[in-house]
Amino acid sequence: MRKVIGVLEGDYIGPEIMKEALKILHVVEKRHHHQFEIVPLEASGKAFDRYGHHLPPATLAKAETCDALLKGPFGGPPEQMNDPKWSSVEREAILPLREHFRLYTNLRGIRSFESLFHLSPVKEHIIRDIDVLIVRELTSGMYYGEKKETVSGGERQFSDVEAYTESEIRKIAVKAFEYAKKRKKKVTLVAKSNVLKSSVLWREVVNEVAGFYPDVENDYMHVDNAAMQLILNPRQFDVLLTSNMFGDILSDEASVLPGSIGLIPSASLGDSSFGLFEPIHGSAPNIAGKNIANPISAILCVALMFTYSFGLAAEAAHIEKAVTTTLHAGYRTADLFRSGDDPQKLLGTSQMGDAIARAL
Amino acid sequence: MRKVIGVLEGDYIGPEIMKEALKILHVVEKRHHHQFEIVPLEASGKAFDRYGHHLPPATLAKAETCDALLKGPFGGPPEQMNDPKWSSVEREAILPLREHFRLYTNLRGIRSFESLFHLSPVKEHIIRDIDVLIVRELTSGMYYGEKKETVSGGERQFSDVEAYTESEIRKIAVKAFEYAKKRKKKVTLVAKSNVLKSSVLWREVVNEVAGFYPDVENDYMHVDNAAMQLILNPRQFDVLLTSNMFGDILSDEASVLPGSIGLIPSASLGDSSFGLFEPIHGSAPNIAGKNIANPISAILCVALMFTYSFGLAAEAAHIEKAVTTTLHAGYRTADLFRSGDDPQKLLGTSQMGDAIARAL
Ligand SMILES: CC(C)[C@H](C(=O)O)[C@@H](O)C(=O)O
Ligand SMILES: CC(C)[C@H](C(=O)O)[C@@H](O)C(=O)O
Repeated sequence: MRKVIGVLEGDYIGPEIMKEALKILHVVEKRHHHQFEIVPLEASGKAFDRYGHHLPPATLAKAETCDALLKGPFGGPPEQMNDPKWSSVEREAILPLREHFRLYTNLRGIRSFESLFHLSPVKEHIIRDIDVLIVRELTSGMYYGEKKETVSGGERQFSDVEAYTESEIRKIAVKAFEYAKKRKKKVTLVAKSNVLKSSVLWREVVNEVAGFYPDVENDYMHVDNAAMQLILNPRQFDVLLTSNMFGDILSDEASVLPGSIGLIPSASLGDSSFGLFEPIHGSAPNIAGKNIANPISAILCVALMFTYSFGLAAEAAHIEKAVTTTLHAGYRTADLFRSGDDPQKLLGTSQMGDAIARAL
Repeated sequence: MRKVIGVLEGDYIGPEIMKEALKILHVVEKRHHHQFEIVPLEASGKAFDRYGHHLPPATLAKAETCDALLKGPFGGPPEQMNDPKWSSVEREAILPLREHFRLYTNLRGIRSFESLFHLSPVKEHIIRDIDVLIVRELTSGMYYGEKKETVSGGERQFSDVEAYTESEIRKIAVKAFEYAKKRKKKVTLVAKSNVLKSSVLWREVVNEVAGFYPDVENDYMHVDNAAMQLILNPRQFDVLLTSNMFGDILSDEASVLPGSIGLIPSASLGDSSFGLFEPIHGSAPNIAGKNIANPISAILCVALMFTYSFGLAAEAAHIEKAVTTTLHAGYRTADLFRSGDDPQKLLGTSQMGDAIARAL
């Protein structure tokens, strides 16, 4: 298979972990006789320094010629949040990228690694065998709704609109039911229909879509209850379908279950096979340049790209297995290391990449 | 002290647990020579059956003559959610009650009980000594913003508006800083200022208010990160200040930490000492009428009422201590009972009330 892959390496630890992701990509490429052309794409901090834009038009134009994008984390240090270089990365790069490619489906799979149960803040009997797929709407809702500043009676009012149309809900609901069909056959819609009008439409349209999937269970939960249930009993979920804002909160909450945020990749997809794959963690300026960041989420992004954009299920499974094997053998990056672990097996970023490459 | 207390007993387990709350109230009344007049107020299911209203005007009129309200959970069984008796309890009773009395501040204190650490889904080293006060805005935001149904291009769009004015934010921020002053002197504002306009106003106004409290630390966290941090490291929080919608989600999430939702009371307050005090859990139709519900959250509501509405700090501390002592002595309601616990100490709802009354 020949594929063109755009790489947005990201800020701070971004280039370090993306390098390991590409290392793994190239091992698979050789092993399975594929041809992957890598197209470096400039964005975020470095693009801002060079062009005064976080997402230059040339980057978007080149990205359009790619079959998929691998993206590192964008963003700067908390102390520099008011610096123009960092203050608008979200609004100037992250949100426009999702919108430009109409990537309305964000997927995060939450699974626990047996060899890392002890790292979870949650007790082992709760996280054992969890497998939740969070399907978050990504290009509508409050993120993209009308924003207003008005003044009345001498004081300001700022507002955001949470708006959804039937078709926006329908197309992501169909995806959720399709995924569920290949999994444990249950979709749980999470919304707040006892308070929000938009949630009432979500329930209505999801019920309609569910009619076409008689073999998939169609469940509903209020968002406040879901925030409890994800910690009390995450095994009750198979596919969790929700809006952009609720998905942002719930997927981050659920990401604590496996024990380190450095383990979780995400996929953002639209109507075609084109997708954007990125770790869910940030750019971690405090540990950048030290070869200590965990490259596993970036490496697992390659597996997600194989699954969702290229249909290379066997290759994806190889990568996932290599990661599990490496962790099972006791190898750890600093975020996964605890006193009592074998110091010989504490690895740097590139050494973890090498270990996973060997396990392939 | 003479006080008039309105009691909305609530649905299903509501009357059972409220009875125990009043039992404790009367013990304190005698012990400390107070006079508490109880005014029963009709609302929710029974009021709907009798008057076709979940919150009859007569109930509101009588409630206005009270110094504080004790409220049991409102709501019906999930299977009957489309029954008019239950479908609009939130919109017809819960939200109007908050709005009518301008109870814009909702408080939930999250603390763990040493004798119940084993019940928490989260590991003991994380929940030991937590003491988080969640200050949630309760009468604005998406809950009360404009709701619209529009049709365009043959499809419907439903929307909700998250809107805040400077004064709405300012008055709750002042409360948060006042509480923090008497606690560990830290306020963490939780919002989503990298995406939402309304969150930008929250940050601005909270920073302004913080200027008047130089001795209180003023911190900020995005809501997705807060959803992680509440599980990873809840001890970092003292006062967590947030909007109505985010507060709904985060306070339910945090409520899993102590090990049972049956332990957590809440206070809803306005500009005066008048307040509404209610457990955070639901009406639990599945266990109603069996004398097995946990009355502790309702009993702790009495303590909150003493603290926030009546300024009776010593009386409040007595109740809280009696609850801790009773749990420490091994007494359990069914939700708190685990195999290995002493079956002799498994108590029904009214027996738990008696045990706490004895401990007073
Ligand atoms: C950086 C931010 C805009 C983004 C979001 O809120 O979507 C992030 O939190 C995420 O979940 O990808
Ligand atoms: C019942 C519902 C309207 C309510 C809310 O969302 O405020 C409840 O969840 C709460 O937190 O008190």
